[in-house]
Amino acid sequence: MKIAVDAMGGDFAPSEIVRGAVDAIGRIKGLEKLYLVGDEKAVRAELELCGCDHPGIEVRHASEVIEMAESPAKAVRRKKDSSIGRAVDLVKSGEADAVISAGNTGAAVVAATLKLRTLEGVTRPAIAAVMPTRKKPYVLLDVGANTDCPPDMILDFAVMGTLYSKLILGQDKPLVGLLSIGTEDIKGNDSTREAFKALEESPLNFKGNVEGHDLFAGETDVVVCDGFVGNVVLKTAESAAQAIGHWIKEEFKANLIRLLGCAFLSGALKTIKQKLDPETYGGAPLLGVNGICIITHGSSSSKAIFNAIRVGAEAIESKLNERITAELNAVHSKK
Amino acid sequence: MKIAVDAMGGDFAPSEIVRGAVDAIGRIKGLEKLYLVGDEKAVRAELELCGCDHPGIEVRHASEVIEMAESPAKAVRRKKDSSIGRAVDLVKSGEADAVISAGNTGAAVVAATLKLRTLEGVTRPAIAAVMPTRKKPYVLLDVGANTDCPPDMILDFAVMGTLYSKLILGQDKPLVGLLSIGTEDIKGNDSTREAFKALEESPLNFKGNVEGHDLFAGETDVVVCDGFVGNVVLKTAESAAQAIGHWIKEEFKANLIRLLGCAFLSGALKTIKQKLDPETYGGAPLLGVNGICIITHGSSSSKAIFNAIRVGAEAIESKLNERITAELNAVHSKK
Repeated sequence: MKIAVDAMGGDFAPSEIVRGAVDAIGRIKGLEKLYLVGDEKAVRAELELCGCDHPGIEVRHASEVIEMAESPAKAVRRKKDSSIGRAVDLVKSGEADAVISAGNTGAAVVAATLKLRTLEGVTRPAIAAVMPTRKKPYVLLDVGANTDCPPDMILDFAVMGTLYSKLILGQDKPLVGLLSIGTEDIKGNDSTREAFKALEESPLNFKGNVEGHDLFAGETDVVVCDGFVGNVVLKTAESAAQAIGHWIKEEFKANLIRLLGCAFLSGALKTIKQKLDPETYGGAPLLGVNGICIITHGSSSSKAIFNAIRVGAEAIESKLNERITAELNAVHSKK
Repeated sequence: MKIAVDAMGGDFAPSEIVRGAVDAIGRIKGLEKLYLVGDEKAVRAELELCGCDHPGIEVRHASEVIEMAESPAKAVRRKKDSSIGRAVDLVKSGEADAVISAGNTGAAVVAATLKLRTLEGVTRPAIAAVMPTRKKPYVLLDVGANTDCPPDMILDFAVMGTLYSKLILGQDKPLVGLLSIGTEDIKGNDSTREAFKALEESPLNFKGNVEGHDLFAGETDVVVCDGFVGNVVLKTAESAAQAIGHWIKEEFKANLIRLLGCAFLSGALKTIKQKLDPETYGGAPLLGVNGICIITHGSSSSKAIFNAIRVGAEAIESKLNERITAELNAVHSKK
């Protein structure tokens, strides 16, 4: 399989991106080729720093970069030779099977949706986030691609999330929950009540509504919501974790005795950090586009890039998109 | 001033509720009378256990209790002699100036809204949560009273939140943010874009959109959103904090050396717990009803009840509701 990597996207590009790619080639089963797309000089310089001349890595030049703060739709339209645009082009032309980017999320969504189009039966693609919990990670979608979502769209999200949970996270019969503000079917707003009905009538393993309280319990494998709510939830959870981490650090550093305590606990603190680290789960897939597209956090390290490439390879290997098309067909034909 | 307390509401009622009331009477300035509303025998037994015969505490009998799991609207209609219903009645009749409950939140909202009605100019009341941040607490509303909120309602929430921040939390010129999924005014969904315009044209100190990431930064004094999003955010933040707390505990207990480390850090862990403790901030006011109504967490301890009574007293003292009516009049007349 062949994967295109946006070498210029992300806060630590191209250095961390190139390092992640170098780590991946030869170590990920079935991965024949990695295209590093971006400024050729800069990318080659990084490859030299790594001492890498693996024949599986191929640099493809792109003269422009879409910055984090740029308006996605405008930037994709104006910058015809952007690294993300060119990386997506490789999937469109069939030279690559998947694309990975740590750059501007909106730009990746726009480029992938415009150039690759959606899979048969999918109205709109959704960004799925893999969330850590005490028991097992689960899939939350949509976390930002669509702000207003009719019930049929939520149902499609549930189908795509179920297959991601099954094929990539290894859940046998993924349990689906609808994010709302009470567990009874009448709870929620007009949109969620309609979505509840659509999910209940589907062949999915639907458990009913879940609440904010349930998001870290690890009892559900797929949680669906519109992209406005999902985006707010994702960012709230991230910022709550950061705030608590900061408070802990501040308090622990308050005096010498506490610093001594920290020394004893360093192993525990490291384990917690790892458990909470979104980089472990390989980024957020953009589900529903005609091609595999994995978006990782702007602050991605080489480890995050490595994991995103690994997940991309698994998605290709397991024929995720073919399975999504087949399952959506089955669900839609039963209605 | 006189305050009615639902003595039967909450997971630890009547014991913790009565203890909180006993702590409050005589210690809170200006508080002449506390009505403890509920099963007379049970409440008197608790008072005796506390050794309290303060003349400022008066027991008012109510034969029924609305349980946590009951459907609010039905329960309020059916149980005519419920402790929360009777406590609200005391405000309606003018015998009390405020009501406090740790019971079924929905039942408190329904009882207060039906019996007290809304303040002049308010379409719907909102539940405001006081959220901790690294810098200062802020007000988040609505966190669950209304699922679908037109822009005018969001504007009213912003006015009420601003006055709560000013009068109860002591902020001089409260900065108002609209919860959305991007900082530019065009970001968000149809509802938030309209609410943005209404807030921008108002005389409030509106800073624009805020995101989930900003919710723990402490840069905003009032954050407004519809009750669906607010409820999901509140519960997500709570569960994220709990999950992290649990992970920390598990890891810290993994071996003896770590347990020793914990001993050195016990002071720090206690401070963090206090900082994050919602009980410190005195519960969630139901803003916009014609009477002061403070709702506290179902798991409220006597300390939470004490703080809720203190906040209720401050709201009465500062004429919060009169100020809300005047300010809403001013804002509406400018349109």
